[in-house]
Amino acid sequence: MGSSFGQLFRVSTFGESHGGGVGVIVDGCPPRLALDPEAIQAELDRRKPGQSRITTPRKEADRVEILSGLLDGVTLGTPIAMVVRNKDQRPGDYSEMAVAFRPSHADATYQAKYGIQARSGGGRASARETIGRVAAGAIAKQLLARAHGTEVIAWVKRIHTIEASSIDPASVTLEAVEGNIVRCPDAACAERMIERIEAIGREGDSCGGVIECVVRHAPVGLGMPVFDKLEADLAKAVMSLPATKGFEIGSGFAGTLLRGSQHNDAFLATEDGSLRTATNNSGGIQGGISNGETIVLRVAFKPTATIRKAQQTVTSSGEATVLEAKGRHDPCVLPRAVPMVEAMVALVLADHLLRQQAQCSLW
Amino acid sequence: MGSSFGQLFRVSTFGESHGGGVGVIVDGCPPRLALDPEAIQAELDRRKPGQSRITTPRKEADRVEILSGLLDGVTLGTPIAMVVRNKDQRPGDYSEMAVAFRPSHADATYQAKYGIQARSGGGRASARETIGRVAAGAIAKQLLARAHGTEVIAWVKRIHTIEASSIDPASVTLEAVEGNIVRCPDAACAERMIERIEAIGREGDSCGGVIECVVRHAPVGLGMPVFDKLEADLAKAVMSLPATKGFEIGSGFAGTLLRGSQHNDAFLATEDGSLRTATNNSGGIQGGISNGETIVLRVAFKPTATIRKAQQTVTSSGEATVLEAKGRHDPCVLPRAVPMVEAMVALVLADHLLRQQAQCSLW
Amino acid sequence: MGSSFGQLFRVSTFGESHGGGVGVIVDGCPPRLALDPEAIQAELDRRKPGQSRITTPRKEADRVEILSGLLDGVTLGTPIAMVVRNKDQRPGDYSEMAVAFRPSHADATYQAKYGIQARSGGGRASARETIGRVAAGAIAKQLLARAHGTEVIAWVKRIHTIEASSIDPASVTLEAVEGNIVRCPDAACAERMIERIEAIGREGDSCGGVIECVVRHAPVGLGMPVFDKLEADLAKAVMSLPATKGFEIGSGFAGTLLRGSQHNDAFLATEDGSLRTATNNSGGIQGGISNGETIVLRVAFKPTATIRKAQQTVTSSGEATVLEAKGRHDPCVLPRAVPMVEAMVALVLADHLLRQQAQCSLW
Amino acid sequence: MGSSFGQLFRVSTFGESHGGGVGVIVDGCPPRLALDPEAIQAELDRRKPGQSRITTPRKEADRVEILSGLLDGVTLGTPIAMVVRNKDQRPGDYSEMAVAFRPSHADATYQAKYGIQARSGGGRASARETIGRVAAGAIAKQLLARAHGTEVIAWVKRIHTIEASSIDPASVTLEAVEGNIVRCPDAACAERMIERIEAIGREGDSCGGVIECVVRHAPVGLGMPVFDKLEADLAKAVMSLPATKGFEIGSGFAGTLLRGSQHNDAFLATEDGSLRTATNNSGGIQGGISNGETIVLRVAFKPTATIRKAQQTVTSSGEATVLEAKGRHDPCVLPRAVPMVEAMVALVLADHLLRQQAQCSLW
Repeated sequence: MGSSFGQLFRVSTFGESHGGGVGVIVDGCPPRLALDPEAIQAELDRRKPGQSRITTPRKEADRVEILSGLLDGVTLGTPIAMVVRNKDQRPGDYSEMAVAFRPSHADATYQAKYGIQARSGGGRASARETIGRVAAGAIAKQLLARAHGTEVIAWVKRIHTIEASSIDPASVTLEAVEGNIVRCPDAACAERMIERIEAIGREGDSCGGVIECVVRHAPVGLGMPVFDKLEADLAKAVMSLPATKGFEIGSGFAGTLLRGSQHNDAFLATEDGSLRTATNNSGGIQGGISNGETIVLRVAFKPTATIRKAQQTVTSSGEATVLEAKGRHDPCVLPRAVPMVEAMVALVLADHLLRQQAQCSLW
Repeated sequence: MGSSFGQLFRVSTFGESHGGGVGVIVDGCPPRLALDPEAIQAELDRRKPGQSRITTPRKEADRVEILSGLLDGVTLGTPIAMVVRNKDQRPGDYSEMAVAFRPSHADATYQAKYGIQARSGGGRASARETIGRVAAGAIAKQLLARAHGTEVIAWVKRIHTIEASSIDPASVTLEAVEGNIVRCPDAACAERMIERIEAIGREGDSCGGVIECVVRHAPVGLGMPVFDKLEADLAKAVMSLPATKGFEIGSGFAGTLLRGSQHNDAFLATEDGSLRTATNNSGGIQGGISNGETIVLRVAFKPTATIRKAQQTVTSSGEATVLEAKGRHDPCVLPRAVPMVEAMVALVLADHLLRQQAQCSLW
Repeated sequence: MGSSFGQLFRVSTFGESHGGGVGVIVDGCPPRLALDPEAIQAELDRRKPGQSRITTPRKEADRVEILSGLLDGVTLGTPIAMVVRNKDQRPGDYSEMAVAFRPSHADATYQAKYGIQARSGGGRASARETIGRVAAGAIAKQLLARAHGTEVIAWVKRIHTIEASSIDPASVTLEAVEGNIVRCPDAACAERMIERIEAIGREGDSCGGVIECVVRHAPVGLGMPVFDKLEADLAKAVMSLPATKGFEIGSGFAGTLLRGSQHNDAFLATEDGSLRTATNNSGGIQGGISNGETIVLRVAFKPTATIRKAQQTVTSSGEATVLEAKGRHDPCVLPRAVPMVEAMVALVLADHLLRQQAQCSLW
Repeated sequence: MGSSFGQLFRVSTFGESHGGGVGVIVDGCPPRLALDPEAIQAELDRRKPGQSRITTPRKEADRVEILSGLLDGVTLGTPIAMVVRNKDQRPGDYSEMAVAFRPSHADATYQAKYGIQARSGGGRASARETIGRVAAGAIAKQLLARAHGTEVIAWVKRIHTIEASSIDPASVTLEAVEGNIVRCPDAACAERMIERIEAIGREGDSCGGVIECVVRHAPVGLGMPVFDKLEADLAKAVMSLPATKGFEIGSGFAGTLLRGSQHNDAFLATEDGSLRTATNNSGGIQGGISNGETIVLRVAFKPTATIRKAQQTVTSSGEATVLEAKGRHDPCVLPRAVPMVEAMVALVLADHLLRQQAQCSLW
């Protein structure tokens, strides 16, 4: 248990890094939604390894096959199963790691929990597990777009100490995000980020950073107090991604330095009778429910745990040793994590759209 | 839907701020656990309004009645229902707010979502809703203590700009936390925090801050990859509390400024064969699973939304107005939020303890 | 775990037979539903003990108190908590049973499972537990009536060997059911049933029978293949009631004696374009989904386990003994079980109404 | 939603009759269970079409591929995904049915619910959907056998009017069940059943019957009152199979004709201190909890809906027509349904084994 997410738009992922393949079942998708399989593949391509010089050179085509749930490209309302076969495996790369627990990786805890683990490729703790999430998220995005014109866009806001502070959540475009390999819509900043990643990677080290994500044109009213508040489910969603260390909604930690009179978002009367706010410290959510303003959240990603630099560790038999990882790993996970964040956010929104439809649309 | 939390140790809360009462059902608690009702009441007393000069003067005895699930103080394994009656209501205080949406509060979104709302006291969005959480969390704490000697302790780490930076997560005690009314175990710092809250409160304004929480002696192996990672469920748990804006585990956002070689927690061989780490940037969780080190997390709380200062807003009929709230409200929610954070963290741990027992203890 | 039912219209019950009280939380009820509290009480009155000479003389007023979720009688969309206090307890009646396991009752299995049990009144295995179900079912009925004019009616079809075979599911009325104390709408048959129950009761023995239930004007399309087919959820719902031994939908076991050409329900073209069937062996459900015809199901109830007649049994310390129960028990559970069956069926329908709304009503 | 089953041992199936394939994810299986893939395939072979002269001649090899969750044949505790490719499709066979709704089949209700449906092969309503159930059930069986030596055996008890009444639930063997193509362990009776199926099939008609199933050596204490009683979850499990019309536990409907003094199962003291009952009208379950006696249940299956005989029906455009189905269908589903019933029962037991482990094994 633990490989399913969502109450009504429910995804269940499977698959180890090495083995037959990885994939996902999406259950609960509304029927009669025309799906674009190329849009699903396009999201997987944004996620796949080997896409640029700042990602792992591990090559996987990651072609998705849709096994069920569609008729002539239209959803049937039945489970949509998608599979990506595993291909480029070099188990030999992992031979050392099979005996030495990698620091800050999942080796030791998986062993402690299950008493067994996939020895090569990181098993279920590999970033490869996120393929199912991204494929499912691509369906969620198409559902949200059709239902309300809702769009979900994420980007790299900070790499190590380099922060892009001039990006406007209200107007940033997917094209700008995809305009460079680090996925930061501030082109000048992106250049410096790429250099930093390359420099740190050359040293056999790694770095982390912050991804920002917005949801524009979200329906008003999504979120289920008191436990399934929208920000609570968003927090869980992104904190379930590998390497995440923190989550913020709206003003986040910085907001705690303000006074109430500074932090509160004044309501504005509008001509069409809808309610708007003068500021958006709430990040589009009040009382756990979306208010129609742009949803804004940020996610902290730690530096990649697997590095080539020598590290002190312990073998599975309890002896001290030094590990110098030899696999092909990302010096920085953030460029590939951008579509993962979008996917998780889209899954939460799609799920809450159906939940709201269930409870509050009968009359 | 949305008022239940947990898969196996499952709590369901109910109740508006004004009305018959608030409470909770705890389903799934193991049988034959001797419960101390006074310990449950004690947690509610830490949460209740009117407890000190820096909390709302609203007086509620908040005496809990246990309706079911116990035989001579021992759990039966059946649902434990607990109720707290509502008492000190002054609906008149809310007459203005009944027409004017309070900025950054839940009034407008509840109205948009449900098309109806409890007019007085904040209804379900009131902090009073957390009584059920705290009562249930008190049971979870007793379960954790009995099963593994696990303890959960939270404290105020920062109020507005005043931060207590010298608190040791490994040794901080409940007594130190309870040693002052702001619940900061650094006594000198606590004095300054109290002054700040009082000063801001006198201005009719409010402030926020950060609460830190640790889990010591947590069992190794808790957490259910890939979606129900321990930090993901912790994030959801605390982000479902009112007024939260951010969550961090271990190194958090600051950890993103480090390199992998700095951030990784080196493994140490120990004499008893258990695995320890030299540092704890992971915050006690690796790969979504507890590793036996102290779990450390932080939660950002915004400044209280309800303030006496005049604010620009809109009435429920769409007209611009100015609101000066007259109710009795906390100038800062953090002192009373400390037991709430502990409760939510304890609920997550108890739930995952049972989930781990279910899957991994058969042989 | 095990005391909650439903995915979206979700009820959680609590309470032992003896103790503070019993009750239920209903979470997920749509907002803006005007509830009639008297209709809720009326259902409880149909269920309560002491209502006639063929039920247990145990007296309980069973007045329900609604603690939350309503504003001026209208649902808020938040959890509706309802409590009934326990009153007339005579724990002394159970002193013998506290040591001797009652045959075919839950004493021994509760002890084996939990290692502890409520000694008096049957604890959670008492029929008193169904109060929460009936109260919640009364809300479900009002929801169904408002949403689609759907009505749920059950009645006693057979008591011991006396069967009422002339009742028309399409036209039977609540008034006819409530027209006599055994709740069989065939008045002549009812007389004989009452005599049979009294005769068997005088001997210190008990009897069972069959309850039939229909749902008229059910929405078309309810049911979630493949596991949550409507008949599957109905089966679970009624088989979770105490003393049930069997379930049938439509033609049931008798239908297995027919050939396909006899059993199939031919489709009829209608003037308004809707689809009807010439017969209804399907019982209103095809492929797990309601087809608009009347839903018809039957439930087998065994003879009450607690009888005054001497029975061979074993004490909790393992010694053979003879038990002659002294408590006040129903010689036949069926008259009081009629509202319980209706409640469980209504809960299933309400839940599936919301589930269908969630998935299939966006466009 | 609706394609997942179980709380802790949780299966999610996918796949239409025609399309890429069908399959299942099993999430929550305990780690370190050595799985025999041949045993999984063997169960699928018992289920597959074309296995004998009394099943549909449709040929499908139904070879299962395990994509994840295993390391050298041992479970990892991660999701186990299994896929069976679709092969022998003759969509042409279904051309008539694409326009005419088959009586008592799922065509019309799927169309009404989803507004779209898989046109060929029955889509998700095809018996082919049960492949995932049977494959998952095969894993559940291995888990139960390892944990408690528990075994699940089902057989055909009645075909049309021919009933095998001399089978002893305590001693019937899998070998006896598999000793003939109709899966009735009474060999003489089996002969007559086979003749009946063939005779009815030759007429282009179909027949139904009753399957009986036992669980031997079940752990004591399984079942989660009050809603998730063991018999309630068993009822749901088997009533979710295609073509089922009724469910009985223990004495079933016949038990309602007895008096309490006849029906109650007297407790017997045993030398080893365990509790046994003199009779087993309870069917191995009391108060919703297994008592250690053999669990006995029966399931009614209707005659196959798809028959070659001419039937009155309506086209999807609402016009009356006559349908003579041309596909290759089973004249009687029961022989192939035997492994399906076993699978569903095993899934329920495995799930409740883990649930019991979660709540009641900590101390």
